[in-house]
Amino acid sequence: MSQIKTELLRKDAPIGVFDSGVGGLTVVREIMRQIPNEKIIYFGDTARVPYGSKSKDTVTRFSEQIVRFLRTFQVKTIVVACNTASAYALDELEEDADIPVMGVLKPGAKAAVEATRNGRVGVIGTEATIGSGMYSKYIKELSKNVTIYGKACPLFVPLIEEGLWEDPVTDEIAGRYLAELIDIDIDTLILGCTHYPLIRSTLGRLVGGRVSLVNPAYETARELKDMLLEMDMLNDEEPKLGSNRYQFYVSDKAEKFVRFANSIIKYGILSAKTIHLEDC
Amino acid sequence: MSQIKTELLRKDAPIGVFDSGVGGLTVVREIMRQIPNEKIIYFGDTARVPYGSKSKDTVTRFSEQIVRFLRTFQVKTIVVACNTASAYALDELEEDADIPVMGVLKPGAKAAVEATRNGRVGVIGTEATIGSGMYSKYIKELSKNVTIYGKACPLFVPLIEEGLWEDPVTDEIAGRYLAELIDIDIDTLILGCTHYPLIRSTLGRLVGGRVSLVNPAYETARELKDMLLEMDMLNDEEPKLGSNRYQFYVSDKAEKFVRFANSIIKYGILSAKTIHLEDC
Repeated sequence: MSQIKTELLRKDAPIGVFDSGVGGLTVVREIMRQIPNEKIIYFGDTARVPYGSKSKDTVTRFSEQIVRFLRTFQVKTIVVACNTASAYALDELEEDADIPVMGVLKPGAKAAVEATRNGRVGVIGTEATIGSGMYSKYIKELSKNVTIYGKACPLFVPLIEEGLWEDPVTDEIAGRYLAELIDIDIDTLILGCTHYPLIRSTLGRLVGGRVSLVNPAYETARELKDMLLEMDMLNDEEPKLGSNRYQFYVSDKAEKFVRFANSIIKYGILSAKTIHLEDC
Repeated sequence: MSQIKTELLRKDAPIGVFDSGVGGLTVVREIMRQIPNEKIIYFGDTARVPYGSKSKDTVTRFSEQIVRFLRTFQVKTIVVACNTASAYALDELEEDADIPVMGVLKPGAKAAVEATRNGRVGVIGTEATIGSGMYSKYIKELSKNVTIYGKACPLFVPLIEEGLWEDPVTDEIAGRYLAELIDIDIDTLILGCTHYPLIRSTLGRLVGGRVSLVNPAYETARELKDMLLEMDMLNDEEPKLGSNRYQFYVSDKAEKFVRFANSIIKYGILSAKTIHLEDC
C-alpha cells in the first residue's frame, strides 16, 4: 500500500463504495446500519455489469477507472463492495492509493476462520472469485488448520436479478452447486458474492442449520467501523437533513438501478445519476 | 441512411460483424455457409456483455464505438449480429454510415411474415429487444394482418452460456416463458436473440411441430448475400490459403471466447485478439 496520509482526510468526508452493479448495495445496507453517521458515494458499473465472468485485466482496469471517479469526491476510504473486484483488483488498488482501500474478501475470510469448528469451509461465488483462489489465500494466512472448498455458481446472479429468490428453479440449481460442499461436510459457508445474501434462506435451508453462513457484507461493515475508529476517522456528527448523505452513481440509465436498489435498501434511494467512465 | 458510395468499396474487402459477445457467431456461421468466399472481421464486446439488460443510450454508444473500430479495416458492409443492438442502434448506425449496415431484425421479421398462416407470430428475445417493440414495427410495415406477441426471456442467455442446452431447468424456464405464446396459438416463433438457435430443439419441442421457428441469423446471411449480389459486391475470388479470411477481436481476454466460439463454429477459430474500445 502507498503511504496513507490520514492527516489530509476529513472525518466528515464520504466513504466511496463500488460494485459492478447492484450487488454492492447489500454492503451499503450494512454500512448504513452499523455506522449511520457516515456519508456514502456509491458507484455501480451497470453499463458493464457483470464482472464475475470477465478477466483480471478487464476487472482491474474498470476498477481503477471507478476509483479515479470516486476520488473526485475526496472520499476518506474506499470499499470494494464486489467480491470479484476485491479478488482481482484489490492489490493493485491498494498499491496505487494513499487512502485506505478495503475489500470484502479479507473480512469474510476472517469471519469464516472464527466460525468453523471442523476446519472445512465452503465458499461460493462467481467464476472469477472462485478461480482467483483469493479466499483460500487469505484463509491460509489466518489459519493452517482450515481447508477451503470453492464452488463457482454463475447462475445465481441472473436468477436473483430475475427475482427468483424463492423458486423451485433456484432450489434445483442451488442443490446442484452445493451438493459437493455438503458431501464433504463443510460447517461454514461464505456467501462470496454480494448478491447471495438475497437468497440466504434458500441456501440455509439446503445446507442445513448446522452450517454457519458468513455474509462478507456484514463483516466488511464491521471491519470498516473498527478501522475508522482506530484511525479516529469516524464521522461524529450526524449529517444535516437534506445534506445528500447517500449519493448513487451508475454507468447505465438510473431507472432500473433505482428500482432494484429500493428493493434492497429501505432508506429510500430517491435517485441516481449516470456517469460515463470513459471520460474519467 | 447517408449516401452509400459503393464505387469506393472493394469486392474483396471484408464484412464487419459485431455482437455483444459470442451470440453473433451464429450469424457468422451462416455467412460462412452461405457465402464462403467472404472475409469476415468479427468483434465481440466481451468486456461489456451482455447488452440485453442495458439501455438504448448505452447500447447505441457501445455500437458506435465498435463500428468505428470495424471501419478501420475498410469493411464493405457491417452486420449488426445482435438483436439488442439492431433493435436499439440500427437507425443511428445507418444514419452515420456511408456503407450498408444490416441488422438481424428486418430479415427475421420478413421471414416470419412469409411463414405465418394464422397471422399470430411470437417473438422471444432480451428485455431490450422485446421492450423496444422494433420487431412489431417492422412486421407491421410488411403486413397489416399479422399480430406479434413479444416475450422477454432474460434467463436463456445465462443458461445457454452455462451449457445447459438440454436440461430440465432450461425446459422449466422455457415452459414458463412460452406458456402465454402457446396459449394464444402462435404458428410462428422468431428466435429474437442470437443465442437462441443453440436451444432450438428445446424450444421446438415445447411449442410443437406445428409452429415454424424463424432463425434471423439464417435469414440475415441470406439477405446479405442478396444485397451484395444486387450491388455487385460479392467476393468472386476464393481467398488464398493463409490470407486470414476470418479475424476475431474481443474486448476482454480471448481464451474464453475462443473456447465458446469453437463450440459454435466448426471451421476452427485459432485465435482472437483483445482490443480496448475506449481507445477507438
